[in-house]
Amino acid sequence: MEKQNLKIRMRIWLECETGETLFGEGQITILEAIEKKGSINAAAKSLGMGYRSMWGRLKKIEQRIGTPLLIRRKGGISGGESVLTPEAKRMVEKFRQLQQNLHETAEKICFNIFS
Amino acid sequence: MEKQNLKIRMRIWLECETGETLFGEGQITILEAIEKKGSINAAAKSLGMGYRSMWGRLKKIEQRIGTPLLIRRKGGISGGESVLTPEAKRMVEKFRQLQQNLHETAEKICFNIFS
Repeated sequence: MEKQNLKIRMRIWLECETGETLFGEGQITILEAIEKKGSINAAAKSLGMGYRSMWGRLKKIEQRIGTPLLIRRKGGISGGESVLTPEAKRMVEKFRQLQQNLHETAEKICFNIFS
Repeated sequence: MEKQNLKIRMRIWLECETGETLFGEGQITILEAIEKKGSINAAAKSLGMGYRSMWGRLKKIEQRIGTPLLIRRKGGISGGESVLTPEAKRMVEKFRQLQQNLHETAEKICFNIFS
């Protein structure tokens, strides 16, 4: 097997002291979908999730970090619009940055394990 | 939530170009258990795996990298002893090094996502 055929892959997440995942790919994907689709309902559909399940996950993060993630406007057929708060946007951005940095570092230090 | 309550966690693995995992925490754990226990049988038991399943995973890696992972001595009640080849030992060591390096880097660049 040659080096160039191997790809390093990684998953990163942030854990609370209880060992529970606070913030990882799943949570970020949800926030990005809401930002893109403009509502929890549309975001949930686009990810094949239930509204309640998505809402529950968002609530859990909000409770843990003590900061609202969404600015919501209720009503309408779609169940209201939602946009990310500046704090939520910042978290998404920082998490993606961290991922990107780590991936670049991994590629740099991934000396050939199989050589 | 305060910064010191959050822990960064990561999982890294090496993928073939087919998208299949070649080498990750699971494979490394198997190799380390064989090294520690001295046989596939004892290693499988210690990890709560079946012998056949473990053997199949080892074979798959060997086929992909074209290098034997184990030096086996058949026979005996325990089904024979196994030790890692120097190549396998080196892979385990390098993988753990890579993990360690990345984790240290992650902690360094993990500016406070929630500040």
